Amino acid sequence: MTTVIINGTVVTAADVVEADVLIDGETVVALGSPASGMRETWLSGADRVIDASGRYVIPGGIDVHTHMELPFGGTNASDTFETGTRAAAWGGTTTIIDFAVQTKGQTLRHGLDTWFARAEGECAIDYGFHMIVGDVNDGTLKEMDQLVDEGITSFKLFMAYPGVFYSTDGEIFRALQQTGNNGGLVMMHAENGSVIDQLVVQALARGNTDPKYHGLTRPSTLEGEATHRAIQLAKAAGTPIYIVHLSAAEALAAVTAARDTGQNAFAETCPQYLYLTDEGMARPGFEGAKFVCSPPLRPEEHLPHMWRGLRTNDLQVVATDHCPFCFKGQKELGQGDFSKIPNGLPGVEHRMDLLHQGVVDGKIGLRRWIEIAAATPARMFGLYGKKGTIAPGSDADIVIYDPTARQTLSADTHHMNTDYSCYEGWEIQGRSDMVMSRGRVVIDDGAYVGAKGHGSYLRRERCQYLL
Amino acid sequence: MTTVIINGTVVTAADVVEADVLIDGETVVALGSPASGMRETWLSGADRVIDASGRYVIPGGIDVHTHMELPFGGTNASDTFETGTRAAAWGGTTTIIDFAVQTKGQTLRHGLDTWFARAEGECAIDYGFHMIVGDVNDGTLKEMDQLVDEGITSFKLFMAYPGVFYSTDGEIFRALQQTGNNGGLVMMHAENGSVIDQLVVQALARGNTDPKYHGLTRPSTLEGEATHRAIQLAKAAGTPIYIVHLSAAEALAAVTAARDTGQNAFAETCPQYLYLTDEGMARPGFEGAKFVCSPPLRPEEHLPHMWRGLRTNDLQVVATDHCPFCFKGQKELGQGDFSKIPNGLPGVEHRMDLLHQGVVDGKIGLRRWIEIAAATPARMFGLYGKKGTIAPGSDADIVIYDPTARQTLSADTHHMNTDYSCYEGWEIQGRSDMVMSRGRVVIDDGAYVGAKGHGSYLRRERCQYLL
Amino acid sequence: MTTVIINGTVVTAADVVEADVLIDGETVVALGSPASGMRETWLSGADRVIDASGRYVIPGGIDVHTHMELPFGGTNASDTFETGTRAAAWGGTTTIIDFAVQTKGQTLRHGLDTWFARAEGECAIDYGFHMIVGDVNDGTLKEMDQLVDEGITSFKLFMAYPGVFYSTDGEIFRALQQTGNNGGLVMMHAENGSVIDQLVVQALARGNTDPKYHGLTRPSTLEGEATHRAIQLAKAAGTPIYIVHLSAAEALAAVTAARDTGQNAFAETCPQYLYLTDEGMARPGFEGAKFVCSPPLRPEEHLPHMWRGLRTNDLQVVATDHCPFCFKGQKELGQGDFSKIPNGLPGVEHRMDLLHQGVVDGKIGLRRWIEIAAATPARMFGLYGKKGTIAPGSDADIVIYDPTARQTLSADTHHMNTDYSCYEGWEIQGRSDMVMSRGRVVIDDGAYVGAKGHGSYLRRERCQYLL
Amino acid sequence: MTTVIINGTVVTAADVVEADVLIDGETVVALGSPASGMRETWLSGADRVIDASGRYVIPGGIDVHTHMELPFGGTNASDTFETGTRAAAWGGTTTIIDFAVQTKGQTLRHGLDTWFARAEGECAIDYGFHMIVGDVNDGTLKEMDQLVDEGITSFKLFMAYPGVFYSTDGEIFRALQQTGNNGGLVMMHAENGSVIDQLVVQALARGNTDPKYHGLTRPSTLEGEATHRAIQLAKAAGTPIYIVHLSAAEALAAVTAARDTGQNAFAETCPQYLYLTDEGMARPGFEGAKFVCSPPLRPEEHLPHMWRGLRTNDLQVVATDHCPFCFKGQKELGQGDFSKIPNGLPGVEHRMDLLHQGVVDGKIGLRRWIEIAAATPARMFGLYGKKGTIAPGSDADIVIYDPTARQTLSADTHHMNTDYSCYEGWEIQGRSDMVMSRGRVVIDDGAYVGAKGHGSYLRRERCQYLL
Repeated sequence: MTTVIINGTVVTAADVVEADVLIDGETVVALGSPASGMRETWLSGADRVIDASGRYVIPGGIDVHTHMELPFGGTNASDTFETGTRAAAWGGTTTIIDFAVQTKGQTLRHGLDTWFARAEGECAIDYGFHMIVGDVNDGTLKEMDQLVDEGITSFKLFMAYPGVFYSTDGEIFRALQQTGNNGGLVMMHAENGSVIDQLVVQALARGNTDPKYHGLTRPSTLEGEATHRAIQLAKAAGTPIYIVHLSAAEALAAVTAARDTGQNAFAETCPQYLYLTDEGMARPGFEGAKFVCSPPLRPEEHLPHMWRGLRTNDLQVVATDHCPFCFKGQKELGQGDFSKIPNGLPGVEHRMDLLHQGVVDGKIGLRRWIEIAAATPARMFGLYGKKGTIAPGSDADIVIYDPTARQTLSADTHHMNTDYSCYEGWEIQGRSDMVMSRGRVVIDDGAYVGAKGHGSYLRRERCQYLL
Repeated sequence: MTTVIINGTVVTAADVVEADVLIDGETVVALGSPASGMRETWLSGADRVIDASGRYVIPGGIDVHTHMELPFGGTNASDTFETGTRAAAWGGTTTIIDFAVQTKGQTLRHGLDTWFARAEGECAIDYGFHMIVGDVNDGTLKEMDQLVDEGITSFKLFMAYPGVFYSTDGEIFRALQQTGNNGGLVMMHAENGSVIDQLVVQALARGNTDPKYHGLTRPSTLEGEATHRAIQLAKAAGTPIYIVHLSAAEALAAVTAARDTGQNAFAETCPQYLYLTDEGMARPGFEGAKFVCSPPLRPEEHLPHMWRGLRTNDLQVVATDHCPFCFKGQKELGQGDFSKIPNGLPGVEHRMDLLHQGVVDGKIGLRRWIEIAAATPARMFGLYGKKGTIAPGSDADIVIYDPTARQTLSADTHHMNTDYSCYEGWEIQGRSDMVMSRGRVVIDDGAYVGAKGHGSYLRRERCQYLL
Repeated sequence: MTTVIINGTVVTAADVVEADVLIDGETVVALGSPASGMRETWLSGADRVIDASGRYVIPGGIDVHTHMELPFGGTNASDTFETGTRAAAWGGTTTIIDFAVQTKGQTLRHGLDTWFARAEGECAIDYGFHMIVGDVNDGTLKEMDQLVDEGITSFKLFMAYPGVFYSTDGEIFRALQQTGNNGGLVMMHAENGSVIDQLVVQALARGNTDPKYHGLTRPSTLEGEATHRAIQLAKAAGTPIYIVHLSAAEALAAVTAARDTGQNAFAETCPQYLYLTDEGMARPGFEGAKFVCSPPLRPEEHLPHMWRGLRTNDLQVVATDHCPFCFKGQKELGQGDFSKIPNGLPGVEHRMDLLHQGVVDGKIGLRRWIEIAAATPARMFGLYGKKGTIAPGSDADIVIYDPTARQTLSADTHHMNTDYSCYEGWEIQGRSDMVMSRGRVVIDDGAYVGAKGHGSYLRRERCQYLL
Repeated sequence: MTTVIINGTVVTAADVVEADVLIDGETVVALGSPASGMRETWLSGADRVIDASGRYVIPGGIDVHTHMELPFGGTNASDTFETGTRAAAWGGTTTIIDFAVQTKGQTLRHGLDTWFARAEGECAIDYGFHMIVGDVNDGTLKEMDQLVDEGITSFKLFMAYPGVFYSTDGEIFRALQQTGNNGGLVMMHAENGSVIDQLVVQALARGNTDPKYHGLTRPSTLEGEATHRAIQLAKAAGTPIYIVHLSAAEALAAVTAARDTGQNAFAETCPQYLYLTDEGMARPGFEGAKFVCSPPLRPEEHLPHMWRGLRTNDLQVVATDHCPFCFKGQKELGQGDFSKIPNGLPGVEHRMDLLHQGVVDGKIGLRRWIEIAAATPARMFGLYGKKGTIAPGSDADIVIYDPTARQTLSADTHHMNTDYSCYEGWEIQGRSDMVMSRGRVVIDDGAYVGAKGHGSYLRRERCQYLL
């Protein structure tokens, strides 16, 4: 099956060109100048021709931070791999990397197999896994080596959540050393959980139970501290490090300072930290629970710092930390006790669009949009070559993007399995017209035309972003 | 005339792909996967087939800082546009941007026309011009607007050389404001010439006349100061700024600090600041004169900072500041008085190779090599689309680069018109096999096969690197 | 004549002690514990006994930055040495250091003699002189050496006011080198006058003539730039430097950064930069002219930085830059053209009180009050031993200070020769009850009881604050 | 009993004056100018006259960090309160603050009483206690309040030594909050013990057992990290913090950065970090054990940073961390396993002299010597008024110091109970001639003439150094 996309503007991290794209089966095989004689030949042999006039032709988005079906606080994230990857596709994302979880006391293998089983045959788009390491010990350290060889090349650790996912500094250091040897990459949830837990206990003891206290008990100073610490531990270990869901100016300052010395410190932020503020959590009644995630949404003054970091590459990646819970029945578990509100927001569907809005607003450039949403995520996590660009030999994960369309975000119209949207009623500019996963059209003019199980597991290379 | 390059690895700022490149006349028209059925068709219609097995296929280098035939200190830079652009081509550079000079008291137009006349019909590769503004006044400010419209979109000013090119801070500020309105970009020679001149007078009065005093009278503190000042003036004017030939850790720190706040401060460095040190100037006898340029070569501790800056994009561009003088008869003008040594080094020929050596040494990545030597220079100075990449529609400025070849740098073998090399006897890895300028082969296996006058003048767009 | 001050709390930069003070003639001769048997002996031999119950006994304030009778913009500062030193005394200041001015083209000596003549026989309190160097050349540099030997050990240069006091960087550098040899201290007015002049011309050309444009044409960025530059020039020259009337957060940051590396960079601020904002200049009508000084009053966000700098000793001195002009007839010269408004504010009278208010407000400590207002000024400018403390052998320049008294600042009640107050109607806490200059009571319970000509010229030592 | 000290130069943190000092019993009652008629009266009534010609008369030193008799690693610090305070006196120190230790599982009270008992009746000079808090829990937090009221106003916590003294960040935070309420001051041992323990285990596993591995397993990065973290926790808690024995440039940078924002972050360093380097630990054989302390001695490049910090007050205090162990029988416990070497150096005797050497070398000023060694220690830990200065009403803790005497440091001649000196054979300038504790001569011309038990327990005020 041969497809030709004509009349579009191909946008990659490096180039903006008027070019036709020739796809053979699952793979991009050529890009050609529309003005050349090539088009005719291509059209003559094409099974399908897509006219992308007035559209961008972009690599499918890569969301490297999702939590489908994650068990959390006595419930599960409300999107399954099926519903979640479908929603992702609607929004122009064609790859996710989800987190397999090692439960304390069990092997990494056991956790990984569990997640393999959950995703297998369910996904609309391709997917890979990071591994959450709950226990750092001789056994799991050895398993990390094996996993790297199997394509699980990144490992998440937590400085938050004592008693659950929390690792001590010594454990983190050992894990960093291990990746220094096996080429894996440590991803860090950087909040000082030990102090946060004290603040939470104190707030509850004072009767401060409303959702807004979620934010007030996780001050940005404590994210800045933990980020700095994580980077220093990586420096001591002589390894790169990747900070997940960075939200605070202080944390960005720590990353920036390290990078200014040439240290391989990387960080991602999320659309919610670019657009939403702590005012969400302070909404009347229990409404604020809809905006509870960790790190929490920050006061408005933090937001311009995040955009700055994206512009000058002190933030390299935008992911979603998609971890949706319905307000009814799920977020409500925390009524009367904010610490029981499941942490997480729905987001996988709108990352590409919210970032395109940043282009429209002049906050980032057009190519930078693709770089932070597709190219660098691919390189950071060992998918480049196949994913993150449109070039001969790359997977035909392609989005036909209408940069002038306007859409209104709403729980009524979104496809994520949550009963609310953090952006309810927001009107933004830009929308995916058509989404292709390895040459197969998945979304066509707003309709899902893909298939459960089309998405394949991605065995990843080591980080391709060093040097 | 149709050319196909097969079996090579196409390296651009964003991608490293195995792809065939189809060229029609002066233009790249398509990239295709070798594995696809495309190759056969292409080969059948090709006038010429180039086998790039084991080679990189890269966009031709862009050297945005050259001074062919520049009058300086009573002599002229020893490379003409003919010899200089030929040497550039040998080294894989297919575009230069040279500096037209306004002599104090005359119009910009007059200076520009003089330089147009010098280059016209002489060049082996394409060329553009920046304009050196010697006088900032109502007349020249108005001329700047016209020049921007004519494709001269960048203007160099000097904080050094009082009485010659020096502008006061107030004049610099007015020029910055003017570019804020007309979209031009100010390029700054950032050394505090007012203080340097005092140090020079004092050194000579003490009888310190040897070449090494050139370096000692231009300490890095004074480059750091001027760089900081230039950036603050740009901040006050609300415009971007581009620092030329940055050489000092203090200056890089000023750029880094500004970028950390999101300011559009840019800087280039040169191969001599990445590889050579002030020890050159201290060579016995008058030998040190061979290493006299401004800013001067710095003590060794500055060099790792330059590589760091390149890695994390606090330095965006590497150019050469090619301004060659022969030792005999030219550098010798400064015997007995270092201040009379013509300032400048030969360099246009070896920039691509010396940077590739940085790739070999693990100091920068492969794609980053192309980014700093071709892609960003093109974007920074309004040539992107045509220059700086290999994509459908781009000019076929292409280098077939052998990454494993070894060569020894020497005045005996180089093609620049100077009787010495700063790198005499250095062995490095990597070499251009074939160089193509707009589809025409200029260098073929070490032989010049181009033509005087093939190189065309490039009318440039405004800076494409903002956002 | 012997005086004993009993029952007070002696506050110096280092100590807060309950002690009696014994004064013999002009000099403090002993401090004794009230509880000891000493008091009786002292009282029995005393000509005068002062009961300081509930009062602080503090060293007289030292204001190192005043401009009595300064010719500026076609008029003269409205306080003479007689009226100005009297006003100073009322406010608890017992020493001023004023600025003798070298007019361009004349010798330092000529300027100094002019100022000697103006002050001789006029002053209520002791006084010294700094020298403003208008021309830096071989002659004036040699004169600087002589002046240092005569007790004029500090020299002010200007980065502002091109064509008037402005020195080029090269000239500044030479002056710094000269003080490096003769032990003098360069004081710098750090604003980029070259750029400011452009902004002023542009503002006037746009018809922006109101007082507020004085502030808008002297943005804080340009003070930050000049401060950074001055410090770098001092670094290159290897000498200390002292920044006068620092007003901007950016400028403080430059001083702080230098001090963090151990460089001897010093700075003073003034009460107006601790309390007043740019809103003053924006008052309706021409009222804003009352608040015109240079550097200009800054937006409110700068103020906490100034207090911070005082707390952690990145600012070492508070002086007034007292340079008063009446609104009627003087400030009014600038109606219709803000650039013609004489620059300067009245302030010499209320520095001690406004700083004491800072103590009351918890912004600085009690001893720090004395340190920044008396002890460090004395040391910085070579008066320590005699001035700035209360210790055996020191001059009996003593203030009996009531820390609980309340006063309202107003032109109706102040003693400076201006028809307005920048603090009109402000109520503050603290007031000098009695002021003594070399053992002689000058102010007694709000009445001036001193004598014109009592104040003597102070031949100063070199800076005593290094190390 | 009345004493008069004549002809000396009284040096305090603020003043250097020629003054006679009159002492009545235990207390300074007056300072008088030698030139006044006072001296005669004083001499006539004096029981003892001390001629301090050519000598400094300085407040006795205050060493706020000693560990007499501390149990550590199965042995005890070799100086008892008797021998240690005697040695202190010899060196011009008249007050120590030692650390009472709470053993995990017991009350603070129990630990404190144990230390009270050890010191009672033993000391040659006055002494106070800080409290080491081993367990942070509801009980100990409540006890902290009581202790503050009893004059134990400072509490030491550890980020090092997991399983022994280590507190988690949450516990540290609670302790900080508690002092925020009760006015106590938290003192922090800031090294990341969790990581250090891993490095130690790994080094031993590799057979790296020599003393030098003590230093290599405690890299400065980990002190920098912990210092930064401690400061951030204090910021989050809104309290001041005091870092003990700061040794690393990175740690100083963290303190400096905090102070540059106005945060009340304080730090002490020790003479060993000003003079000794990691080369000590690398001495052949087991000799290196003599130099094992924590934090470890650092590479030479750290030392100038420490002196810089002292100069610009980013380091406020110099203490000794005196914790002596004999080489024979004690340090030897670590043969074959560096981790078993008791941590600590002898030092209480030579702090004043080693700092005076810094004055001689031009690294700090004369008054600054007294400030960092006596005045600020007194203020920081609530002893000011009585201790740290020479003023009417202060304790007559006075040293007659000969600034020109030369002495050679050696275990043969020192009075600390250790069989080696870290400064063996060093010749330095300056020595205490006579030392007085509350009016009683303790050291007279090198001879101990004091009495066991003369030293009294000091009930301390809260920190007097804030504002």
